[in-house]
Amino acid sequence: MSDTAGKTITCKAAVAWAANEPLSIEEVEVAPPRAGEVRIHILATGICHTDEYTRSGKDPEGIFPVILGHEGGGIVESVGEGVTSVAPGDHVIPLYTAECRECKFCKSGKTNLCGKVRATQGKGVMPDGTTRFKCKGKDLFHFMGTSTFSQYTVVADVSVVKVNPSAPLERVCLLGCGITTAWGAVMKLAGIKDSSVAVFGCGAIGLGVINTAAQVGASRIIAVDTNPSKESWARKFGATEFVNPMAIGEGKRIQDYLVEITDGGLDFTYDCTGNVQVMRAALEACHKGWGVSTVIGVAPAGHEIATRPFQLVTGRTWRGSAFGGVKGRTELPGLVEDYLAGKMKIDEYVTHHRTLAEINDGFHDMHGGDCIRCVVDMK
Amino acid sequence: MSDTAGKTITCKAAVAWAANEPLSIEEVEVAPPRAGEVRIHILATGICHTDEYTRSGKDPEGIFPVILGHEGGGIVESVGEGVTSVAPGDHVIPLYTAECRECKFCKSGKTNLCGKVRATQGKGVMPDGTTRFKCKGKDLFHFMGTSTFSQYTVVADVSVVKVNPSAPLERVCLLGCGITTAWGAVMKLAGIKDSSVAVFGCGAIGLGVINTAAQVGASRIIAVDTNPSKESWARKFGATEFVNPMAIGEGKRIQDYLVEITDGGLDFTYDCTGNVQVMRAALEACHKGWGVSTVIGVAPAGHEIATRPFQLVTGRTWRGSAFGGVKGRTELPGLVEDYLAGKMKIDEYVTHHRTLAEINDGFHDMHGGDCIRCVVDMK
Repeated sequence: MSDTAGKTITCKAAVAWAANEPLSIEEVEVAPPRAGEVRIHILATGICHTDEYTRSGKDPEGIFPVILGHEGGGIVESVGEGVTSVAPGDHVIPLYTAECRECKFCKSGKTNLCGKVRATQGKGVMPDGTTRFKCKGKDLFHFMGTSTFSQYTVVADVSVVKVNPSAPLERVCLLGCGITTAWGAVMKLAGIKDSSVAVFGCGAIGLGVINTAAQVGASRIIAVDTNPSKESWARKFGATEFVNPMAIGEGKRIQDYLVEITDGGLDFTYDCTGNVQVMRAALEACHKGWGVSTVIGVAPAGHEIATRPFQLVTGRTWRGSAFGGVKGRTELPGLVEDYLAGKMKIDEYVTHHRTLAEINDGFHDMHGGDCIRCVVDMK
Repeated sequence: MSDTAGKTITCKAAVAWAANEPLSIEEVEVAPPRAGEVRIHILATGICHTDEYTRSGKDPEGIFPVILGHEGGGIVESVGEGVTSVAPGDHVIPLYTAECRECKFCKSGKTNLCGKVRATQGKGVMPDGTTRFKCKGKDLFHFMGTSTFSQYTVVADVSVVKVNPSAPLERVCLLGCGITTAWGAVMKLAGIKDSSVAVFGCGAIGLGVINTAAQVGASRIIAVDTNPSKESWARKFGATEFVNPMAIGEGKRIQDYLVEITDGGLDFTYDCTGNVQVMRAALEACHKGWGVSTVIGVAPAGHEIATRPFQLVTGRTWRGSAFGGVKGRTELPGLVEDYLAGKMKIDEYVTHHRTLAEINDGFHDMHGGDCIRCVVDMK
């Protein structure tokens, strides 16, 4: 039992007071966990485009003031009544996709989209409808059920998983979103071995898809990015080819080019950009009869994907993936073991390091073409 | 060997001289089959919306003059050099989706979309680039590789399948398109047993989907049609519920209504309308996490489907199906046996009968709400 258990903890956090303003490093008060909740000492967190999407004000469901962050790693400080799945001292990764193992979704065996805390999570509050964060007398909202941009955070017990404590949290924190999303988006689809794959967008997600496709034995992996400096990254992660859509000839559509060079199209394509035009290109680059295109990127509010229905009628499938279809509590411990055994790349994604005080610089890093992942040291 | 073998046959056919004109019953000359071709005496043909789509001029790829028709049944009159799969006297169904068993598509094991004769079929000619039809000194184009609105037609040997001669051709001709399309669209998807299904559009295809879903044991089958007279049809074919989108309340979207009454959405939905707004509704009526929506209907040229990518990212799958994913030469004989064994409905779809001379009336029949399928007696 830590001596902080049951007490409010005052610590530092990056607060987003309002849309499209820089985050502000503040002293915040973090209330103790209530029944079914877990308070975590966050040691490291990644910065992801979804954090920036909400910070920027483009997310119509974004609410402020809020503590962002959803790709974290930490140590359980204390637990609320009835919590048995984790205990103080456990090394954990918060999960924005919960896994209760009891709801219709969890029990279906068909999806990782747990319904247990979804409604309250979407409203920025804990399952009981209240928030555990206060700053300057004001309540702060939670974000994605995780709020990892605080040195201490409180999450539902279905939203956290214990992992091997020998794994460095400043690395495996990245399994909280991007790398796992990419891994699952490949692993949960049958048939990628010996198949051709195109990956649109070579950020962390795209590189993760490339890497996983290479691991499962895809025969041809075409990386697509408008930033030519991504070619070396893509090849390092396993791409066999790189195509820059800006360099294929005036007026030529990338999907037509890919269909040409692959004798009919790709077996599998992935959108890792969030751009709806790219999503369309990814679908239309698929092979007639069997091509499967997976949307991973998150599009801006109001944007829609479109295509001619003929694309589907002639045998292409359009699907999507959230957190890679991965059930966090069940599957993340194994991914951490894979990392420890050298079977899963994580270190290779980390290009930038920041302290909590420098977190706004981390957001700037992310917009640079040379940044794959920036990890923030929360200590 | 028939005494017409090797000779041009003069017979009656319904000719579409130009877009959006009534068909004209003419004496046509049908040249003998060349190598790899089969000449068929057509005894019966259905009329399908795809025939009307091309006749009306809405099909941008439609070419005239042409002999339409693709849902026929007949008897082989003669075969060209090298044809071994069928022989004179065989009862056959022409296939607009060929099956060569040799091309990349056929060998993939993943699709029924054979590539062998696709290019020439799309241009209205036989694989050697020429046509077998002449009328008043002019060449007539072939349609969908079948042209069943002629008493004699010539098709590629990969585009025809022999069936049990004890089956009445004026019934099993309907397996040449609609009923098979519906059957395959259900049978080729795993998991429909014990699942909920919504079927948009209660024409022949929709009723076929309803019927097949009922046969495989779907737990709930909701038929959706704006024509209230379709309710009794839908229930007769196995629907457990009927919803008229015009009768669910002002301003209410059908997808929202269906999600409400199914506690989250359907496991499977089918568009059998060809309307892109309905296709969207069908996708969005799917259950988060696992819902699968299949597009069967053929949309007008230029029309596009659209949705928010969030629909896919949260676990819905958008796919399509052509000829139900059925490999005609391999699978149609079995469907004919199923019909003969009383396991497959066909008679129940036939609401109208016409002679070849009345074929334009058959097109009018199709537009009436009380017509499921009109069969034309070609004799």
